[in-house]
Amino acid sequence: MTSRFDSTVYAHRLAAAATAAADAGLAGLVITPGYDLRYLIGSRAQTFERLTALVLPATGRPTVVVPRLELAALRESAVTDLGIAVRDWVDGDDPYRLVGDALGALPAAVAVTDSMTALHLLPLTAALQTTPVLATEVLRELRMIKDPSEIDALRKAGAAIDRVHARVPEFLAPGRTEAEVSADIAAAIVAEGHSEVAFIIVGSGPHGADPHHECSDRVLQAGDIVVVDIGGPVEPGYNSDSTRTYSLGEPDPQVAQQYSILQQAQRAAVECIRPGVTAQQVDAAARDILTEAGLGEYFVHRTGHGIGLSVHEEPYIVAGNDVTLAAGMAFSVEPGIYFPGRWGARIEDIVVVTEDGAESLNNRPHDLIVVGV
Amino acid sequence: MTSRFDSTVYAHRLAAAATAAADAGLAGLVITPGYDLRYLIGSRAQTFERLTALVLPATGRPTVVVPRLELAALRESAVTDLGIAVRDWVDGDDPYRLVGDALGALPAAVAVTDSMTALHLLPLTAALQTTPVLATEVLRELRMIKDPSEIDALRKAGAAIDRVHARVPEFLAPGRTEAEVSADIAAAIVAEGHSEVAFIIVGSGPHGADPHHECSDRVLQAGDIVVVDIGGPVEPGYNSDSTRTYSLGEPDPQVAQQYSILQQAQRAAVECIRPGVTAQQVDAAARDILTEAGLGEYFVHRTGHGIGLSVHEEPYIVAGNDVTLAAGMAFSVEPGIYFPGRWGARIEDIVVVTEDGAESLNNRPHDLIVVGV
Repeated sequence: MTSRFDSTVYAHRLAAAATAAADAGLAGLVITPGYDLRYLIGSRAQTFERLTALVLPATGRPTVVVPRLELAALRESAVTDLGIAVRDWVDGDDPYRLVGDALGALPAAVAVTDSMTALHLLPLTAALQTTPVLATEVLRELRMIKDPSEIDALRKAGAAIDRVHARVPEFLAPGRTEAEVSADIAAAIVAEGHSEVAFIIVGSGPHGADPHHECSDRVLQAGDIVVVDIGGPVEPGYNSDSTRTYSLGEPDPQVAQQYSILQQAQRAAVECIRPGVTAQQVDAAARDILTEAGLGEYFVHRTGHGIGLSVHEEPYIVAGNDVTLAAGMAFSVEPGIYFPGRWGARIEDIVVVTEDGAESLNNRPHDLIVVGV
Repeated sequence: MTSRFDSTVYAHRLAAAATAAADAGLAGLVITPGYDLRYLIGSRAQTFERLTALVLPATGRPTVVVPRLELAALRESAVTDLGIAVRDWVDGDDPYRLVGDALGALPAAVAVTDSMTALHLLPLTAALQTTPVLATEVLRELRMIKDPSEIDALRKAGAAIDRVHARVPEFLAPGRTEAEVSADIAAAIVAEGHSEVAFIIVGSGPHGADPHHECSDRVLQAGDIVVVDIGGPVEPGYNSDSTRTYSLGEPDPQVAQQYSILQQAQRAAVECIRPGVTAQQVDAAARDILTEAGLGEYFVHRTGHGIGLSVHEEPYIVAGNDVTLAAGMAFSVEPGIYFPGRWGARIEDIVVVTEDGAESLNNRPHDLIVVGV
């Protein structure tokens, strides 16, 4: 039931994370279940009331602290191949003290994964007698810059969601509800190779104007513009995320004209991507086109977000984020325009930064897709 | 797409939680998305990188701090009906300062939900200039003692998983893999009224001896003993969780004899439940029967766990837990016996403590269910 990369991939990540922790002057990292743990050792352990944690000292051998009952499941990750020490515990033991023991070099600061819950973070803080910092900084560069195995995985996910979008027109028809369309899309997401559905937005007519609408019992009508934003993970867990906008019948000329500006905005953002450009420059590239056309106020969200094991991760393509793009970063480029009470549209592709530009992992046409009614 | 209780239910819970916070000398509670938030206001908001939090001061009006983009989704919870103040924020604002403002009466201690992530807890700690404590203590009694609407919801979930177990024999046959059986069970879980699958364990033959095994490509064989432990949420989100053990063909006499002792142990535990008994006494009731029969060492986990919005919550039915049972508590009673490399068995029902005993929410026979081969 387990799918993961070769253990050399994880060995490299662990070594790089330990080096980054040492460079940051930290005693080490404490990583409870979540995307960081999955990234570092391929474990899909989940957070329960009992502590499971990878303790990665800046120097020395890593340890996993794990409830004895969950030992077998943990062994399905790369833990065994990587020579990580295993310190199992049973009810009555103090697992937070075990984490302290495995860190060794206290009282230097310790960084924790951003998904560690208060249930574990507060007793860990008490046991270590120091407030941890977020490991986000230390792991940011590692997690942001995808290695070739990750880019392959994202390509596979992109192709899978493209196959779903190719089938969306057959699900859209006046008289059907958003929820019915969503159910068909859910089946297609799994049928086309995703391990599960992460999210489905079917925003028809006025619902398309709410970027966070999911779906409803609204009945589709001829003339509706429909935003379809869908995605999910493909083994070994990398996500797709792509939006296309559909029109039930020929669109109103003004809609078509405004949509064509959105197309330009999306293209302009992708065309400006290359190593050395900042995240906020990509956001501005899309936003400027819309603003010049008088549509800036209708683009109410950031231009994109990083993607990988998590659907939303760094880098965020947003004003104020001056992170410099580098080859291997993967993120969405998804400008949208939203007219409250009337309609909305969004175009979203996942791109990977290359040595001299960007590779789009989604390759369906960007046009407003007219579905016959 | 939303399903929740009447808002009077949430108004009562909020008032009770504020009173409990005041009694504990706290300035208030800060509740990010998770089961506590769902319990208190019916919101299914999820944890993202942007802070959403219910701020419940010990006295005064509660506030939700929410990213403007997620405002519409939050309004689908009981927030509007309950007259909760809404403080929305956009990128660039400091949401942690907004939480501090909404709490008011600092520098008294503040309690946070146990699911708050480090991503939010560490900046909140910095903004409040005090390390929070866990809200678990304050919310424990409220969350543990189910109100009539919750007990109804758990009854509905129990009946739904009973209908699935009634169908399990048709899925079990030599030559099929655990994974194939699991897929059929998954479809049945949804078909019988659950909104999704929370977990499926199909532990056949030696796999049944690992209480945390999920499923595998192992092919079922005549003579296998198969542990099937399944559950999921039923709207508005309360979970089922029930285990039955199946035998592919007539069991070996020793297996049948050992299984009959497990049946006695499960019954003894349920029979000892009433208000005033402690959680550990229930655990001991099951364990003593197995120990007297020489099987104590094969019962390697606690006897049960509370259940509600979460599959695992308080009260835990385990040695050392001296919490006193009270009417309205809901938990599993699930002793098991595990013979490594050979076979295992478990019997699990959810029960609710009544004024003078326990009501079982699962009502399928407890026998080792023989499936013809």
